[in-house]
Amino acid sequence: MTMTGHHRTPVSLLGLGSMGSALAEAFIDAGHPTTVWNRTSSKATPLVAKGAVHAHTIDEAVAASPLVIACLTTYDSTIEALEPAAATLKGRALVTLNSGSPAGARQMAAWALGQGARYLDGAIKNVPSAVGAEDTLLYYSGDNSVFDEFASTLRVLGGDTVYLGADPDLAALYEMAVGGTLLPALVGFFQGAAALQARGLTAASMVRFSVKWFEMINSVLPLFADEIDRGDYSKPASSVNLFLAGAAHDEELGKEANLDTQWHKPFHDLLKRAAEAGHGDHSISALTEILKNPGQTRRAAGWGSAAGY
Amino acid sequence: MTMTGHHRTPVSLLGLGSMGSALAEAFIDAGHPTTVWNRTSSKATPLVAKGAVHAHTIDEAVAASPLVIACLTTYDSTIEALEPAAATLKGRALVTLNSGSPAGARQMAAWALGQGARYLDGAIKNVPSAVGAEDTLLYYSGDNSVFDEFASTLRVLGGDTVYLGADPDLAALYEMAVGGTLLPALVGFFQGAAALQARGLTAASMVRFSVKWFEMINSVLPLFADEIDRGDYSKPASSVNLFLAGAAHDEELGKEANLDTQWHKPFHDLLKRAAEAGHGDHSISALTEILKNPGQTRRAAGWGSAAGY
Ligand SMILES: NC(=O)c1ccc[n+]([C@@H]2O[C@H](COP(=O)([O-])OP(=O)(O)OC[C@H]3O[C@@H](n4cnc5c(N)ncnc54)[C@H](OP(=O)(O)O)[C@@H]3O)[C@@H](O)[C@H]2O)c1
Ligand SMILES: NC(=O)c1ccc[n+]([C@@H]2O[C@H](COP(=O)([O-])OP(=O)(O)OC[C@H]3O[C@@H](n4cnc5c(N)ncnc54)[C@H](OP(=O)(O)O)[C@@H]3O)[C@@H](O)[C@H]2O)c1
Repeated sequence: MTMTGHHRTPVSLLGLGSMGSALAEAFIDAGHPTTVWNRTSSKATPLVAKGAVHAHTIDEAVAASPLVIACLTTYDSTIEALEPAAATLKGRALVTLNSGSPAGARQMAAWALGQGARYLDGAIKNVPSAVGAEDTLLYYSGDNSVFDEFASTLRVLGGDTVYLGADPDLAALYEMAVGGTLLPALVGFFQGAAALQARGLTAASMVRFSVKWFEMINSVLPLFADEIDRGDYSKPASSVNLFLAGAAHDEELGKEANLDTQWHKPFHDLLKRAAEAGHGDHSISALTEILKNPGQTRRAAGWGSAAGY
Repeated sequence: MTMTGHHRTPVSLLGLGSMGSALAEAFIDAGHPTTVWNRTSSKATPLVAKGAVHAHTIDEAVAASPLVIACLTTYDSTIEALEPAAATLKGRALVTLNSGSPAGARQMAAWALGQGARYLDGAIKNVPSAVGAEDTLLYYSGDNSVFDEFASTLRVLGGDTVYLGADPDLAALYEMAVGGTLLPALVGFFQGAAALQARGLTAASMVRFSVKWFEMINSVLPLFADEIDRGDYSKPASSVNLFLAGAAHDEELGKEANLDTQWHKPFHDLLKRAAEAGHGDHSISALTEILKNPGQTRRAAGWGSAAGY
């Protein structure tokens, strides 16, 4: 591949799923010479139509660019796929953008460093359609020199590009720490939608209110973080007991709309355990303490193996 | 109580907890002649210092104003507290602003109408410190004439004041439908905070990322609502299987930071049940269907009574 007159960094994109394809497209649109590879090669076709070069082996793909970005399902699948290209990785910058655990990131880093690659781990906190937007957040951690050298190229994927530190697992740690709200928040929303539908109302009619509700939640996060960092839960805006009083409503809503509200039970248990631990009149953020040391709290609540956990 | 020269509607506020006190203060600040009552009378003192009139019985409080606003813990406590003032309620506008279920709202409405009161049910989707702000959302449902007559007075409590319809339980229904995301979202945030603390990092360091994450969630809610309203989950931006693949990370984070991640289990079960029901490659919003008809889905998953649900 030649640089055909322009001076953007050549990039190779490995993995052309929903996210990988969006990443490749952003580089093509920004004028980067872009080489693409995917296990199932047909997924390269639309990107080739837009100007990408199709590498038929992963080794060719890695050889094509100084910056190699992988977006496969997991770290394990990334290592498995990269094995045939291991020798070619030496001296190149490898960036992974899959989801995964901090432990997975550490393994990935150890493997990449073992091949002599310069490794930067990344995480995208958004959906494929947001790739390339000014506001889209991507975290990176690992080899500082990779981030410094390719920062402007990486910023093509999202304007809010952050380097968290040299430990390669920091991006995965923050991704998991931050991302843990998604499924629970969505299930709460879906339950609300089901409740409205049971009454002949639309899910769409609640969107504006839900958006505002999450904005309210956002407005209180700094306060909660401060309580948690100080370990001082004694001046609650909303107490554990207030949430305990509200817990009864969850079952009533279930009855009202014939919904499965079993998923609330662990939350109610957390509230009860917090109250039993003396946090009843403390801030709801005191639940943070209950989430720590699982062995202890489980025993304290007398949970048996019969509960199936 | 006299109107002392200004022409704002006199308001009586029953219940001076965190929220009731904030409501009373907003009316005082806006120049409304404000009468306050609380079971534990000492809570009236700071409001009296700001200009409120202290009614020593609830009957006196109800008699003092054409608009009576109650903010007690529950509908039951509201009815219990109002019994001695039942006769005086006749012909007056009664607005309740506690949390509660739609069934509770219907009972409250029946009781209030039984006393000859004009009843409007309301719900505040925010914290006490947000009362009075331009952007603060309050829903109302029930007697249309009460809302029309007192809309400008009610708007003192929040600029985003919405009338949902004549059924008195609509405000409670929307409040629950929308509010069901709060505790799960917060527990997700607290877990993230605990994970960072386990690594010697602060909860504060994740706030900016979490805020952005909830903004991302907000940006996809209209799409999910549309899928749910059309009952068409076949063009997923994020599939059930993608979330299932991510479920393993929850346990890894638990191990990483020694956290109690048991609260994830029902979410994983919902994902599995959705996949078993053929929604694996469908949008995550297909979980809405799994939340419906609890009897069926519970049997389908083979959950026994031993699980303690
Ligand atoms: N989509 C999102 O909303 C989103 C958002 C943020 C982060 N992410 C993360 O981004 C990563 C990719 O997600 P996605 O949505 O693009 O997933 P996807 O559409 O399912 O694509 C998965 C990709 O991984 C490849 N792959 C999996 N196992 C492989 C193996 N053993 N060898 C070679 N290739 C393999 C697949 O190749 P084939 O085509 O040959 O199967 C495909 O290119 C995931 O970690 C995901 O969590 C996704
Ligand atoms: N605080 C919030 O963040 C928030 C946000 C939105 C909605 N809300 C809702 O607003 C309502 C009030 O919340 P809050 O935070 O103000 O609660 P709170 O601080 O606990 O106050 C509860 C109030 O109810 C009174 N009360 C309870 N049972 C009573 C009874 N049987 N007879 C007479 N009075 C009784 C209490 O009187 P005493 O002082 O005599 O105990 C007190 O005035 C709740 O439904 C809550 O869910 C609160």
